[in-house]
Amino acid sequence: MEIDRRRPSVENSQMTDIEFLRREERDIDHWDVACDVLVVGFGCAGACAAVEAAEAGASVIVAERSGGPGGTSALSGGLIYLGGGTSLQRACGFEDTPGEMFKYMMAACGPDPDESLIGPYCEHSIEHFEWIAKRGVPFKTSFFEAAHEPFHSDDGLTFSGSEHVHPFNEIATPAPRGHIPQSVRNKGSLLMQRLIAAAEGAGVDTWNQSRCDALVVASDGRVVGAVISSFEGERLVRAKRGVVLTAGGFIYNDEMVARYAPLLRKCKHKVGTENDDGLGIRLGLAVGAEAIRMDAGDVSLALFPPNELRKGIFVNRYGQRYLNEDAYMGRAGEFTLFHQDGRGYLIVDDDCFVRPELFEVELAGVGETIAELEAEISLATGSLQSTVDFYNRYAARGDDPLFHKGENYLTPLSTPPFGAIDLDAENSIYSAFTLGGLRINADGEVLHASGNAIPGLFAAGRTTSGIAKQGYSSGMSIGDGTFFGRRAGRRAAR
Amino acid sequence: MEIDRRRPSVENSQMTDIEFLRREERDIDHWDVACDVLVVGFGCAGACAAVEAAEAGASVIVAERSGGPGGTSALSGGLIYLGGGTSLQRACGFEDTPGEMFKYMMAACGPDPDESLIGPYCEHSIEHFEWIAKRGVPFKTSFFEAAHEPFHSDDGLTFSGSEHVHPFNEIATPAPRGHIPQSVRNKGSLLMQRLIAAAEGAGVDTWNQSRCDALVVASDGRVVGAVISSFEGERLVRAKRGVVLTAGGFIYNDEMVARYAPLLRKCKHKVGTENDDGLGIRLGLAVGAEAIRMDAGDVSLALFPPNELRKGIFVNRYGQRYLNEDAYMGRAGEFTLFHQDGRGYLIVDDDCFVRPELFEVELAGVGETIAELEAEISLATGSLQSTVDFYNRYAARGDDPLFHKGENYLTPLSTPPFGAIDLDAENSIYSAFTLGGLRINADGEVLHASGNAIPGLFAAGRTTSGIAKQGYSSGMSIGDGTFFGRRAGRRAAR
Repeated sequence: MEIDRRRPSVENSQMTDIEFLRREERDIDHWDVACDVLVVGFGCAGACAAVEAAEAGASVIVAERSGGPGGTSALSGGLIYLGGGTSLQRACGFEDTPGEMFKYMMAACGPDPDESLIGPYCEHSIEHFEWIAKRGVPFKTSFFEAAHEPFHSDDGLTFSGSEHVHPFNEIATPAPRGHIPQSVRNKGSLLMQRLIAAAEGAGVDTWNQSRCDALVVASDGRVVGAVISSFEGERLVRAKRGVVLTAGGFIYNDEMVARYAPLLRKCKHKVGTENDDGLGIRLGLAVGAEAIRMDAGDVSLALFPPNELRKGIFVNRYGQRYLNEDAYMGRAGEFTLFHQDGRGYLIVDDDCFVRPELFEVELAGVGETIAELEAEISLATGSLQSTVDFYNRYAARGDDPLFHKGENYLTPLSTPPFGAIDLDAENSIYSAFTLGGLRINADGEVLHASGNAIPGLFAAGRTTSGIAKQGYSSGMSIGDGTFFGRRAGRRAAR
Repeated sequence: MEIDRRRPSVENSQMTDIEFLRREERDIDHWDVACDVLVVGFGCAGACAAVEAAEAGASVIVAERSGGPGGTSALSGGLIYLGGGTSLQRACGFEDTPGEMFKYMMAACGPDPDESLIGPYCEHSIEHFEWIAKRGVPFKTSFFEAAHEPFHSDDGLTFSGSEHVHPFNEIATPAPRGHIPQSVRNKGSLLMQRLIAAAEGAGVDTWNQSRCDALVVASDGRVVGAVISSFEGERLVRAKRGVVLTAGGFIYNDEMVARYAPLLRKCKHKVGTENDDGLGIRLGLAVGAEAIRMDAGDVSLALFPPNELRKGIFVNRYGQRYLNEDAYMGRAGEFTLFHQDGRGYLIVDDDCFVRPELFEVELAGVGETIAELEAEISLATGSLQSTVDFYNRYAARGDDPLFHKGENYLTPLSTPPFGAIDLDAENSIYSAFTLGGLRINADGEVLHASGNAIPGLFAAGRTTSGIAKQGYSSGMSIGDGTFFGRRAGRRAAR
């Protein structure tokens, strides 16, 4: 591999401002390096693209912007949303089919979830699990009872969404689909270690501290390479068969979040690395791709565990309930942030109050009666009282006619003192990452605004709009990143 | 003007699939026509761009896809959202300042409204009104008391948003800003007649039945022309100073709505013409532009007039109120569709029930008591009763502690029979158009994914993301279409 160490300045090049992120092949007088497939970004999607491309016989370079591989995947809980009857599901005693998985995802991952991605994802989920397991990722045959994420155990399977609660338990037969690498801590890191090892084992050439500054486009519109910058200067990398963009989302780009998904700005905790600044998406846009559902995001309100707290009730700033409290934390976050203006409370009594494990919470108010609590948190007189009266009346009979919370959490709130945990985005912890991105087809090809695939350009993971357009469940990002990463790698290598 | 009547087939050209919507200048061997500024689309934004460009000395062609000019603007109510103390506001006895207008818009047109567009819009609103009036658009010096749109009178000024109601009346000093061309019917058509006449008077060349199939891009990234198709074949139009895209939104493109703004699909009534299929936006994307806030839309639930109905209460499918009923119909539609899953009721009693004027409505249920009505529409027993009890208790004192409806509409619902007007998107009439589109700066320049302006490309109107990213008030589309259309035309002609 020869590297041209001259570092052309912008002034010397023919590049105008507008060509940032994109260069024309005809303006390039040499290539520094050539490979078959160039992968941009080395998280789970990039790793899987690289493995598949290399195993298909392609020479592969993975250019990673940071000091080493892993990306957000390595920082995550490592969950992979898989099902349809995987060997792990069966070993843990759960039945599942691709059809039930499809029904859940089409109901949850909307509005208007993308059937063209979800269909193949469900159909090939069993095989995908085997593929990952074969790369040496261990999964313990044990079910985590408490839902949703085993923060303190190495259990292998969990309900990682709202499959088992209203309204989804009436739409599809519930099955746990969160597949978790076996480790008490650093599960995402474990997953990535094995995927990185697989890529290295397949002979992939990895470059760290190497950023993609532009895609190179031939006169017929094909993406034929990229400009990769590092401390050593700019390298023009010819990618004979294609470039795969797997460079993460844009939660760390405040301007892009403001332009596309302003509600996510209210979330204090960003799930990602600083390199989740949307560069992969902007590279795609610069060559005429579409970025879709850019308003979407996963928003987690991680009050639980402890599950005892689910016996409390979510109320908005009008003192009204708005969601069954046994729903997945991403659903709670989404409903509160998107539909309740990021404001509300979890009302608890002395029996069910236990401090959340993950975050410090503020009690916005405490009262010996609901009326006292209502006044303390400045709700209109009578508003919270009538909500709690109504809830208690039915809960005493094990019923929740409005939101259908499961009966294991249905207990009247009757033991003083009563408290209100503040859910205001200003005072509470919402964790967010972006779900919008480049539009791809099921082969991981990036689509042009005309609807056609852009020759030579592929993408996967949070650089794309994937299986969850909204209504996220844990494991869907590593799920579609690895799944469509593999497909993009295979397709590029063809 | 010479027209090349040969119609090159796709097979004969060098064009690959991917180049649809975009062609490279080097692949073109001749131009059929040349002008300084090419305007794509002849609604209000295109007309204003053409006038300003021509008056600045440019030769201008306007290519309109349909059989004649006018577009959605001509079908509309003709309202223009203007303020800051226009001569019409003052003549009608209202005080307003650019600062108060700015405060309202920054609070209403969010989340994260674009200060870089709203700032100049408010600052130059007085001048913009004078400019439009000088083009011969008549405005009667009379105020329409009833808010929001004078469907049966030729009054000149109205509250066309929620300036005068909660929460905006506490944020900025209310002033009516809907400026309405003087006509009982066809107000939008009147506006467009005058703007079209102004364009023709300025010497603009207009082509009907002429669609823009592609933008032509020079090797340095500049947009230098366009491919215009008509019955006569394809014409290559050189635009020496620039192309202005004013081709409407995408509410008539079901696929784009599904990809970008799926909730809008639930709306039965589309506000637009069939040419609002997003072509202008896709042309921009194909040359590397950004399209932002593509999820946004105006959603009107036009239950009022009659204003008597505002004495009813909006409740969702849990029997809870969610909005002050004196808010603008766009706010009611947005809240119901986006935050209540497009489901709910307007609960009325016999005193306030009058049939809406604009649409047929279904009564989902009727009852001699609220309990009976509650059962009739299958709400949980006690849910609607406690909501109405709470509402009535405060309304009797002229108070609405939850949503702060104005006291003129605060009357207990106490005269049987009681009824529920169905607001379900399946059974009711929601009117929608898209608000997302190309990202522009205040000069109407289209911005590339890199953040720089794309040389030679300009846009305005619903092809762009404008002053209202959400939280629309009537008149904002003709408002920003005409305002930034003028700026785009001037800038292009430079």
